[in-house]
Parts: sequence; C-alpha cells; structure tokens
Amino acid sequence: MGRFSTRSFVPHHWIAFGQFGSFLRIARSEGCQDVAFIGSVVRPGLWQLRPDLKTLRLLPRICHIFRGGDDYLLSGIAAIFEEHGFRLVAAQEIAPEIVMPEGVLGRAQPAKQDLADIARGLALLNAISSFDIGQAAIISNGRILAVEAAEGTDQMLMRVAQLRQSGQIETGSSRGVLVKAAKRDQDRRVDLPSIGPQTVGGAARAGLAGIAVVAGSTIVAEPERIGTIADRARLFVLGVREQAAEP
Amino acid sequence: MGRFSTRSFVPHHWIAFGQFGSFLRIARSEGCQDVAFIGSVVRPGLWQLRPDLKTLRLLPRICHIFRGGDDYLLSGIAAIFEEHGFRLVAAQEIAPEIVMPEGVLGRAQPAKQDLADIARGLALLNAISSFDIGQAAIISNGRILAVEAAEGTDQMLMRVAQLRQSGQIETGSSRGVLVKAAKRDQDRRVDLPSIGPQTVGGAARAGLAGIAVVAGSTIVAEPERIGTIADRARLFVLGVREQAAEP
Repeated sequence: MGRFSTRSFVPHHWIAFGQFGSFLRIARSEGCQDVAFIGSVVRPGLWQLRPDLKTLRLLPRICHIFRGGDDYLLSGIAAIFEEHGFRLVAAQEIAPEIVMPEGVLGRAQPAKQDLADIARGLALLNAISSFDIGQAAIISNGRILAVEAAEGTDQMLMRVAQLRQSGQIETGSSRGVLVKAAKRDQDRRVDLPSIGPQTVGGAARAGLAGIAVVAGSTIVAEPERIGTIADRARLFVLGVREQAAEP
Repeated sequence: MGRFSTRSFVPHHWIAFGQFGSFLRIARSEGCQDVAFIGSVVRPGLWQLRPDLKTLRLLPRICHIFRGGDDYLLSGIAAIFEEHGFRLVAAQEIAPEIVMPEGVLGRAQPAKQDLADIARGLALLNAISSFDIGQAAIISNGRILAVEAAEGTDQMLMRVAQLRQSGQIETGSSRGVLVKAAKRDQDRRVDLPSIGPQTVGGAARAGLAGIAVVAGSTIVAEPERIGTIADRARLFVLGVREQAAEP
C-alpha cells in the first residue's frame, strides 16, 4: 500500500463488523497484505454482530478479548489479523498528515491558566497510564472535572456540559480544557488517541476553553474543519510536545 | 457534645445553605462550640444561594474556594468556621458507629474475581490520590469502567447502568465492583468517603456484584438498611482493611 492523500480517491470496500470471512476474501482478492487500524474502539453487543462463519469460529476468543480494557482488546484483535498473515501498520505511517502537529489548529491560543490546566491533565493521565483506560480528562482552574473510562471522550464531554447546566460546576473565569494523551505502553500501531470535528463541537457544548493533545501521537480527523469549527467556537486546539506528558 | 446514638432524638435545627449568619446566631444561643461536617460536597450555583448578610460578606471568599477541588473547598469552609471560634471535630469521633467496619454488611460475599477487581480499584485510586478528585471507580473483570470526578458516585453509577443498557459494556460473568477510598492527605475531620442506601440501589441498577470501601475511613449512613437492600439485590458491601489501599 503506497501513500495517499486522504482526499484523493482510494479503492475501498465497506465490511460490516463481524464479517471477518468477507474481509479475508476481499483482502486476498485485492492482494492486500498490510492492515491499519483507525477510529475508536467499539464494543458492540453480541446481538448486534452478524458474524459470518469465519467470525463465528473465532467468537469464543473474541468474547474473551472483549472483556478487557482497550489495549487488551486491540492487541487481541491485532493478533488475529497477524495470525492470518497480515502485517499491522500504523495508520500514521501510511498517512502522516493525519497526525496532530505542534501548535494550534485555528486561531485561538491557550491562556496562562489553560496551560496550567493542561500540565495538570497530562500529569493525571500519566498517573493512570498503566491502567488501560481511555486517556482523557477535563480540567478547569486546577480542578479535575471528569476522567474518561469506558464511556469515551464524546460522552465525557456531554457529562461536563450537563454538570455545567445543572450548576454542579461553578462557571468561573477559567472554562477548562480537554486533555488527551496516549498511554505509555500503548501499541501505537493499533490505538492512538484521536480527535475530530465532533470533539470540538462537544468541547464547545461543555463550555471549555480548548483541547490539548500530544503532538505526534494523536490522530486528527479533518484538521481543516476542526480549525474552522474551533475558530467559530473560539476554542483552541493545541498540539503539545511529547516531553510535557512526562513531567 | 457527648456521644449519642444516631437513632435517639437529638435537639437540632435545619439551616439553609447560605445562612451562615443564622447558623452563628443559633449555634451561639445553643452553646455550641464544636462543628462536624457530614455528607457529600455540594456546589450549588450562586443563584441557588439565598445568602444572609453574614454570608454575603464572605461571598468573594466562598466564590474563590468553590472553584477548586473538594479538598480545597472543604478546608476553605472549615477555615471559615474555625475563624469564627468553632472547633472542627470529625463526625466519626462523635458517632463511631457510623464508620464502616471490616467485613460485609448483609449476607453476600465477594467472589475471587471481585477481590481482584477491588485490588485493582484501590491501586487506581491510590495512583490518583494526589489529584483531589472524587475517590471512586468501577472495575469489572480487570477493566476500569468508570472513574469518578466532579459528577459524584451516584451519577457515575447511573452512567455505568446506561453503558450497560446501550451495550457499550460487555455483560460477562463478572459484574463489577464499586470501589471507594479516602484520599491519602484527606482532612479526615471534614471529608470521608460515604455510602448510603442510595449507593447500594445505584450499584444494583448498574448491575454490579458489590461495593468495597475502606474500613475505618468510610462513613456509612443507615448500615442496617444497607444490609437489607444489599441482600435483596444480592450485592456484597465490603469493608476492606486500610493496608490494602496502599499496595
């Protein structure tokens, strides 16, 4: 597989979750040898799966790996692909333009208090890094408002929006920052934190001042649209240097 | 103030949040010199406060301490009471019977996997102990499903109930445990983790196997009712030894 712009046309197929047999057939007929994972981890209920025969045979194993944390799930799924002769390639290797750069997307810049909140968020994420949970938190004026686990970033943002509406969070001058970072031992081939336009929308609804992610190890979906939405909401979207994550 | 059973009649007054002037007047006329804090930290919006004159004068300071984490808020409020001549006494000093004992309330006992989940939860809470956030988490089969911050325990339990309903959490054989522990440097006079009958109800709705708290440093509201509700829901409610919290 060569490099390609995310905007140019690329031959592709859609395969439903649970159709591993179809995947194998199509991949082989197309001469595919490499596999890249991208997107968030979904854990559909088993009743939502429509497994083909091949998937059905793997089902006991899939059930088992579904029960662990995200890392456990992804490395388990990755192992299945590797056992079937595929090479796992990091998405950012194929398309380096989807990786968050240093600095801001859009025009807004973090204020001094935001930078302090970002440092605190990165310190917290560092402290929980070994626990295999979603690596994101929301910090406002030094106070940790939310820590992400199984619910995912979008639902955590929604929760903070609700806490603000119900008055459970004092809406002071500092509005808070969403901080995301990769886990220390995260398999970077299969799972990097990611943000997209919906993350910025969610952050705006949660009344946040901005979003901070680690440059070089965060996937950014549609960076230009992110910039536009961030400008409209007057939110900063910042890529911070890796070192900052490990104080 | 002498010791008293929580069940016998004790002279008391209800004072609304924001009526610090009324509090001072009543406390002085009753000859009160000690103050004990009990219950969870609420951060009502300023518009919900109906401050009397005394509170109004303290408002800038109250606004300031409302913006920090729970510890910061409580020690700030405690300082205000102390400056007005009151002595802060831990609730558990006055009423030792409200402290969680070692072992279970009710009949259900934790299974082996539950004990492993409890150990993992305590390790996580220990790792985030210095960050001044709500010290609770929900763990199932080694996977951390939720970490509590500004939303509080009840809302975290509700979230896990919803994640289960929507199929975002695989409902395996192990159902998960709510683990609560005091922060390492928590001012035990003003803020211990607490559980009550509503915690057990919430845990049941979240489909959990049980609740584990640290014996000796957790306040238990209505332990008998907790036992009854736990038995009905076949949940264990366990007090673990302090040492277990610091592996």
